Amino acid sequence: MNGQLTIQEITEQPEVLARLLDDERPAVDAAVADLRRHPPSAVVLAARGSSDNAALYGHYLFETMLGIPVALASPSVVTLYRRTPRLRGMLVIGLSQSGRSPDIVEYIRAARGAGARTIAITNEARSPLARASHATLLLHAGPERSVAATKTYPAQLTVLSLLVGGLARERRFVDGHRALPDLVHRALVSADEIAVAARRSRTMERCLVTSRGYNYATAREAALKLKETSYVAAEPLSSADLLHGPIAVVGRRFPVVVIAPPGRVRPHLARITRELSARGAHIIAVSSDPVIAALAWTVLPVPSPVDERLSPHVYIVPLQLFAHHLALARGFDPDRPRGLRKVTRVL
Amino acid sequence: MNGQLTIQEITEQPEVLARLLDDERPAVDAAVADLRRHPPSAVVLAARGSSDNAALYGHYLFETMLGIPVALASPSVVTLYRRTPRLRGMLVIGLSQSGRSPDIVEYIRAARGAGARTIAITNEARSPLARASHATLLLHAGPERSVAATKTYPAQLTVLSLLVGGLARERRFVDGHRALPDLVHRALVSADEIAVAARRSRTMERCLVTSRGYNYATAREAALKLKETSYVAAEPLSSADLLHGPIAVVGRRFPVVVIAPPGRVRPHLARITRELSARGAHIIAVSSDPVIAALAWTVLPVPSPVDERLSPHVYIVPLQLFAHHLALARGFDPDRPRGLRKVTRVL
Repeated sequence: MNGQLTIQEITEQPEVLARLLDDERPAVDAAVADLRRHPPSAVVLAARGSSDNAALYGHYLFETMLGIPVALASPSVVTLYRRTPRLRGMLVIGLSQSGRSPDIVEYIRAARGAGARTIAITNEARSPLARASHATLLLHAGPERSVAATKTYPAQLTVLSLLVGGLARERRFVDGHRALPDLVHRALVSADEIAVAARRSRTMERCLVTSRGYNYATAREAALKLKETSYVAAEPLSSADLLHGPIAVVGRRFPVVVIAPPGRVRPHLARITRELSARGAHIIAVSSDPVIAALAWTVLPVPSPVDERLSPHVYIVPLQLFAHHLALARGFDPDRPRGLRKVTRVL
Repeated sequence: MNGQLTIQEITEQPEVLARLLDDERPAVDAAVADLRRHPPSAVVLAARGSSDNAALYGHYLFETMLGIPVALASPSVVTLYRRTPRLRGMLVIGLSQSGRSPDIVEYIRAARGAGARTIAITNEARSPLARASHATLLLHAGPERSVAATKTYPAQLTVLSLLVGGLARERRFVDGHRALPDLVHRALVSADEIAVAARRSRTMERCLVTSRGYNYATAREAALKLKETSYVAAEPLSSADLLHGPIAVVGRRFPVVVIAPPGRVRPHLARITRELSARGAHIIAVSSDPVIAALAWTVLPVPSPVDERLSPHVYIVPLQLFAHHLALARGFDPDRPRGLRKVTRVL
């Protein structure tokens, strides 16, 4: 049957997170202790694809919880233009599920050579990325056999939030991670409802996916899944940037996925939802908020309450399910996306 | 007549750049001298919309020519989550044509309060952004009356490349700027040919826009223009990321704009063009390369030779013309994009 690997890996996510929380805490604590001895002046996150979306979440989290400035690396600077930025005293984190993306490995090697502290976040303990880095934090996701990454994504987010929470000494935030396996489990319970929503959306050829703050990463990852497995031209946009011009494309029945968690972004996203609704957009809302849900064409349910800072780990789940069922409804096999390889070799 | 303001401002660009090169050099030289006295450990660029695309170019240029690590700011960290990163010893550049984007002004104020050196790059000498910053570099673009930014964009690129070139003491690169007004003029000469290409593409509802390195910024800016004025769901993607999954959306006759300048990125972009061609994509190539042109469905001509590092200033021009003529061919008025305001107030 089409998509069995993918749905199995999506469904495994509560166990993956529970295992990660049990098994990787000592390694995270060691990394925290090491970084406290040598506090980095800045953080650079190097990644491609889904891992780059996890990195974007890390960007917000390091800056908001620690006040450490964060850059997302442009690996081309090293691999194409042959220049290594001056990274001494900085922390450079390479994220790659396989640990084999050649340009990320090369970036980490160059960063280490330039005097940066380097950490690999990967599912593969013996990968080139792990070997190239000072320290490795593992995802414990088990083999990811579907080509499009699913279960490794919340695992990457979890490693990042454990690391930042530990550095910030926010004990309550770190302890809050214990709720994640159950929250993800509760998100999975709505799978049938989401399958109906996906069938209702099956003629969709393009859409926007929007959110803000921590969940801008969720918007990017959801759009990537929609492109990879359903071949929908799904464009992610920060809702702040959406207002800054691109909202012009939104006419009647234009599909817009709005990811609206509780917390600081809520008033802004409620306003965006009203603006989109006034334009007649087909709003697909990922939200537990009744005001936002009332304006939506379709709601993808999410559990509540959830700490906004941990909501990306949970809010991606209904979107993984939506992309999966949309692919099936459109007659595609999510396990075999056309022309996609597990490790992309970028020249 | 529809679009007169826009085409006038696109056409003015050689004069804008000539004026900027004549009038702003002393201010750039002063900023260079100041930064040489206090070399920044890192650079943060804060911007929204078109200005954020110019910032992306700045990201590559600072890192490749100076080896200074660069971050693109997430203003929400300051404006929404109320945390200012530790920016002491860093250079923070705010880019805003109007100088009135409230979240960029707020970010610059917070950065200055945190001990960063701050520079405004703006068209408005008396704007809040200019007043909030230690120094201001002006675009000399004259009033920009069309809502979608055109002439201020290459002006922002030029200020950035003059600044970085000055800091890098690359005299030949700085002198090379003198060719820009003529190069942009030669790009404008193909307007009629581009109008024909736009009419040929008028049924396009979605597309990808791709490039790599310095011109990834061009891809983002072109996609923004297509969305703002032609309401095409145009998604920009780095060609490295395109290979990392999203190429799956590209089937037969899927429109892909490929921006392929000469230089380091050329072999990679030639390979991407071949892959896209093998998938039957409708390639709209912005290139002077005959091999790439031979694979394209449509070519938007650009002058050659051009230094890859200055090519974004020139390669955006045929894409501005293409977006303009596409809007006209689709019956829209590029001067009055629906629901777009000149200064976007982000909550």
